[in-house]
Amino acid sequence: MVKSVHGGDVYRHPGVIDFSSNMNPLGTPESVIRAAQESMTRIVHYPDVRQEKLIRALSGYEKVPEGYLFCGNGAAEVIFAYAWALRPKQALILAPTFAEYEQALQSVGCRVRLFPLREADGYRLTADFLNAITDDLDVVVLCNPNNPTGVPVEMELMKAIIRTCRTRGVRLFTDECFQDFCEDPERMTIRNYLKEEPEIFILKAFTKRYAMAGLRLGYGMTADAGLLSQMRAAVQPWNVSIPAQEAGVAALREEGYVERARSIVKQERAYLKASLEKLGFRVFDSRANYVFFKGEKGLCEKLLPYGVMIRDCSNYHNLGEGYYRAAVRLHAENEKLIEALGMLRKNSEKPDKRI
Amino acid sequence: MVKSVHGGDVYRHPGVIDFSSNMNPLGTPESVIRAAQESMTRIVHYPDVRQEKLIRALSGYEKVPEGYLFCGNGAAEVIFAYAWALRPKQALILAPTFAEYEQALQSVGCRVRLFPLREADGYRLTADFLNAITDDLDVVVLCNPNNPTGVPVEMELMKAIIRTCRTRGVRLFTDECFQDFCEDPERMTIRNYLKEEPEIFILKAFTKRYAMAGLRLGYGMTADAGLLSQMRAAVQPWNVSIPAQEAGVAALREEGYVERARSIVKQERAYLKASLEKLGFRVFDSRANYVFFKGEKGLCEKLLPYGVMIRDCSNYHNLGEGYYRAAVRLHAENEKLIEALGMLRKNSEKPDKRI
Repeated sequence: MVKSVHGGDVYRHPGVIDFSSNMNPLGTPESVIRAAQESMTRIVHYPDVRQEKLIRALSGYEKVPEGYLFCGNGAAEVIFAYAWALRPKQALILAPTFAEYEQALQSVGCRVRLFPLREADGYRLTADFLNAITDDLDVVVLCNPNNPTGVPVEMELMKAIIRTCRTRGVRLFTDECFQDFCEDPERMTIRNYLKEEPEIFILKAFTKRYAMAGLRLGYGMTADAGLLSQMRAAVQPWNVSIPAQEAGVAALREEGYVERARSIVKQERAYLKASLEKLGFRVFDSRANYVFFKGEKGLCEKLLPYGVMIRDCSNYHNLGEGYYRAAVRLHAENEKLIEALGMLRKNSEKPDKRI
Repeated sequence: MVKSVHGGDVYRHPGVIDFSSNMNPLGTPESVIRAAQESMTRIVHYPDVRQEKLIRALSGYEKVPEGYLFCGNGAAEVIFAYAWALRPKQALILAPTFAEYEQALQSVGCRVRLFPLREADGYRLTADFLNAITDDLDVVVLCNPNNPTGVPVEMELMKAIIRTCRTRGVRLFTDECFQDFCEDPERMTIRNYLKEEPEIFILKAFTKRYAMAGLRLGYGMTADAGLLSQMRAAVQPWNVSIPAQEAGVAALREEGYVERARSIVKQERAYLKASLEKLGFRVFDSRANYVFFKGEKGLCEKLLPYGVMIRDCSNYHNLGEGYYRAAVRLHAENEKLIEALGMLRKNSEKPDKRI
């Protein structure tokens, strides 16, 4: 099968604690589960093609006009719909970054140019990125904070990227899915630029924010009404199921849930970083709800017998074997990961007794 | 909004009996609702990208190899994925037929040629269709039985179409979604041709068969492994949600449910046809779980105050105002439709007393 390039495959590894996908550590809110369950008695009907309740709630949550919004069967569908609608010929993406941008762009025959992030810079985006935004590009794709590194783009650089894109006639697609778990998301988002810069598209997900990856719900925001209408023409009218629409409405009513997660993530990310460093791993400066680190080869397989699954990052561009991503979970779970790594480290230092 | 070209919009018409979408009259099986509800506690995980349980169950149900199957977020996504994977330049579709084929084909820039069905033939497909299958075509799309007419393609003609497509190097996409409600589906399907004819693609839906339109699950079957792999590359890896996968597995375990529906449909379709004819409507020869008929203009709007919603077919190619489709539902519901039409007829014959 071609599709096992991602984390989160609990189906082939039942019973493990999954650090390989980056969900809200608090799990799915009860209200979301209940709303989706309750809606199941109405699935004899098609979903609302206008997604009225969900769009109204989202517009209030994001403080953008309803007309800026496009909802998808997970953020991944939004990425594909964007690619199909725009049909770009040439795109610039980071290396490493989330694999679906490239898959979606290539599915419409787009040439994808990689901008290699340097380990020496801690995988931070630097100002030389501006020179890579050439006017032969149709779109620049930025993940902020980046996946799998968790490293954010500094606001001054982001502003310069917006200006450069405008000057050179290049669109900007920015994935802000993981900002929900950063310390000060309101200072990272470029949502306030949407109105003046219709060339900007922002991707967001319910998947991670409310830990509902299995139900599928994501959205995008842009002031470009023409693009949104092309995206609507590129997907079926019933792309967001009834339970996903209802779960979305319930999720947006949650109070304090995201804030609680954010505070846990801050504390536990620091715990994981310190513990991993103590074990001798090089840990990069993630600000998201996952840590990105470097160590010996083959760690994923070795961890599975200890009941924990992390993300092997060797199939990302510009990374190789020995790079890993682990979600920040609740403390007791994070301890299990550290314990497992500790035991592994200890055992590997001993001479092999089995021979 | 651009998307209100379909039936089933119960959101703008709360409380009506919906004859405008063609679901199994028995409603969603309890087992399907329960399986989907139960799975909701696991949506913190991504869906299984390999869809292993569902694909295995479907392979057993359809008696085709697992490698022939592609599952989508509703049959509509399968149509779009087929169009994106194939990127045909020129296609032939019936007029009238289900609108999504054309929308999906046009979304990849395909020119769509219409084959007009004639009212004088009762909208039956005739042998002159074979002459329309010219070698400049990439694909022929057939809906059998057709939507909105319910008229099936005769098996002898279908065999000739398969031969002609093969000779002229044209692919055949056939939508068999409504065969589940026909009297003898095993004598209508061309599933047995799949192995020898990899140019055939068959579309099927859980949506109608198990009345689960709001949850979204459809599938396609073909022996063309290359096409299936292109379809997979054209959609996100997590396109079928956890509740949809679980509901699908539960649905395929249902025994007798589809057969019971089939028997109700046969009886009630006859009742609706006879009653509509008694009221002076021209009723065409549907073999599906809906009736297609002709009457005065504006019937849909006039029926809404009586609490019933039917499908206005004026936005189909080659039809105009005064053509309608109504789902075959349970007897008491069908009676309400006939009663409402009867009252309407009576009132329109009286001189208007309000003036």
